[in-house]
Amino acid sequence: MKKTALIMAGGRGERFWPKSRKDMPKQFLSLTDDGKTMIQLTVERILPLVEMEDIYIATNRDYKDLVRRQLPGIPEENILCEPVGKNTAPCIGLGAVHMQKKYGDATMIVLPSDHLIKYTNIFVNTLSEACKVAEQGENLVTLGITADSPETGYGYIKFRTEEAIGNAFAVEKFVEKPDLETAKKYVASEQYLWNSGMFIWKVSTILNNMQAYLPRIHEGLCRIGDAIGTERQDEVLEKEFSAFDAESVDYGIMEKAKNIFILAGTFGWDDVGSWLAVGRIKAGDELGNVIDGNVVMVETKNTIIQGTQKLIAAVGLEDLVVVDTEDALLICDKNSTGDIKKVLERLREKNQTKYL
Amino acid sequence: MKKTALIMAGGRGERFWPKSRKDMPKQFLSLTDDGKTMIQLTVERILPLVEMEDIYIATNRDYKDLVRRQLPGIPEENILCEPVGKNTAPCIGLGAVHMQKKYGDATMIVLPSDHLIKYTNIFVNTLSEACKVAEQGENLVTLGITADSPETGYGYIKFRTEEAIGNAFAVEKFVEKPDLETAKKYVASEQYLWNSGMFIWKVSTILNNMQAYLPRIHEGLCRIGDAIGTERQDEVLEKEFSAFDAESVDYGIMEKAKNIFILAGTFGWDDVGSWLAVGRIKAGDELGNVIDGNVVMVETKNTIIQGTQKLIAAVGLEDLVVVDTEDALLICDKNSTGDIKKVLERLREKNQTKYL
Repeated sequence: MKKTALIMAGGRGERFWPKSRKDMPKQFLSLTDDGKTMIQLTVERILPLVEMEDIYIATNRDYKDLVRRQLPGIPEENILCEPVGKNTAPCIGLGAVHMQKKYGDATMIVLPSDHLIKYTNIFVNTLSEACKVAEQGENLVTLGITADSPETGYGYIKFRTEEAIGNAFAVEKFVEKPDLETAKKYVASEQYLWNSGMFIWKVSTILNNMQAYLPRIHEGLCRIGDAIGTERQDEVLEKEFSAFDAESVDYGIMEKAKNIFILAGTFGWDDVGSWLAVGRIKAGDELGNVIDGNVVMVETKNTIIQGTQKLIAAVGLEDLVVVDTEDALLICDKNSTGDIKKVLERLREKNQTKYL
Repeated sequence: MKKTALIMAGGRGERFWPKSRKDMPKQFLSLTDDGKTMIQLTVERILPLVEMEDIYIATNRDYKDLVRRQLPGIPEENILCEPVGKNTAPCIGLGAVHMQKKYGDATMIVLPSDHLIKYTNIFVNTLSEACKVAEQGENLVTLGITADSPETGYGYIKFRTEEAIGNAFAVEKFVEKPDLETAKKYVASEQYLWNSGMFIWKVSTILNNMQAYLPRIHEGLCRIGDAIGTERQDEVLEKEFSAFDAESVDYGIMEKAKNIFILAGTFGWDDVGSWLAVGRIKAGDELGNVIDGNVVMVETKNTIIQGTQKLIAAVGLEDLVVVDTEDALLICDKNSTGDIKKVLERLREKNQTKYL
């Protein structure tokens, strides 16, 4: 069966401020030493499985030019612009109706655009196996990440080893972000994996599930699908999509659907959820510092510095994140990266929108 | 007796890097909210006692234009340029021979150019009293600072209350920077004051003491004095001054001379020895932060930020000093300000002299 991919790239993530901005979100930034952006790496990673012309990018109008520039190999008509963000279910549905129109049916790989994966070869193997499971009957397949700590920032997926297709285990339930105590129990039980937000299914399977669990969205998607290729395409998309409820595929479908299978990913996944990820991704010095730019350090350790041309002198620092850009500088304790969003709130209050 | 002042402004202090640079040392910076530079404040402070035309500035050629620009009221011929830095004794001697040439004799107030004083009125009163003591016989007078902590960064002066002229006590000895244990004993004994580097004496007194204790320097100074006003003035200065040994007035004269008196200063003196001084000088917020520039703070306390136009976001910080300039940024733990000089060493090693 034809393999396709939908890469979701509409996010406006704030956690990489001040490098990420409303007109330059995280997926379009390069955080690795190879200079490639997150979305470029996401595409490159699946090329052994999916032809470039069968890769779709779901984003919004503001980022269309960024996608074009960073991914010149993706056909123009495969860049799908959501008129407004409505969470993942409508986004995936939009991709599915486009694929249905073009291919009739196909295997559809859904991927976030802003994660990193260390072992691309293992990842491709796992995805390939997931495709086989998805192509059997009406299975919804997801990749789960082996939890190595009780993270409270991820959703968890409970599985049963008793029922399996090859290495894919039956999913018992999706659970939302737990508190620390619950997360500890999950990890200890060895029956939970982290929800990676990566899905594999047939186009027909996901559309059938939408019809069953999100019927109003499904109706709108059908009208959008009918209009593809006509002169009313944009107008119908605008009207129908804007009327959708914002709904995640996790909550709207996966928590209700049957025939869900999960493959445990052991491919060095990182959701790059904060500046701390840079400390994991890049090679540090013997004192644990990860440094970019023109930096002089004295008695400094476990510190991440992302600079530009400006000279940065770090003296006696520990466990800090320093990110300098042309017009804004962040200095943040490593334990406080969650508070970066408060900076953006203050900037909104002060109407300093140029920094957002 | 005519009152004159010599303000010593040749220092190339590194402790206020990156705001202070080799072409813009600390005495020419403004660190107070009034926008006046340290040397401007130093001059302004003594105007109730000394006429502007009787104030001399000892500096070096590199800073002559800075002095002219910041102190347009000082007569051009009162700006004395040392051909090379030779510590305080030759500097003071140079001032003294110029004053001798012009006034015959005068009361000479010697002041550093980079200290701050909170209570100007008390300071002027103390100086005035010091002048009276200096004008009696051949007394060398200094102002000592009431030690409120066992600082190891200052010299100390031991005095005897048994012998006094008014409030000026006889000095028993000058001692160099002590270790912490010794400093604690000094402070506990109530017989020591901090050496402020401010001196008051007659021109004739200091020149007589130079003749007694630094005879070679005195001979050279006489030749320099003889050449003042002649066409050989610059040539003689260059030749004689360059041949001087570098010698501090403390070590070269004060540790050996007789008839030294000290007045205890209680006028809110601050030698502005590091960025920490900004935290003492400027008003902070309720969390102890002292902020300049376009700054957004989240959960940050006891932090000093000196910014420019660039937005600085401080998240979860404590006890840091952040100084941003156009081409260099310093982030320093408050306990590590002494290590800023190591940054400059590294820059010299890396030949990045433009940042010095």
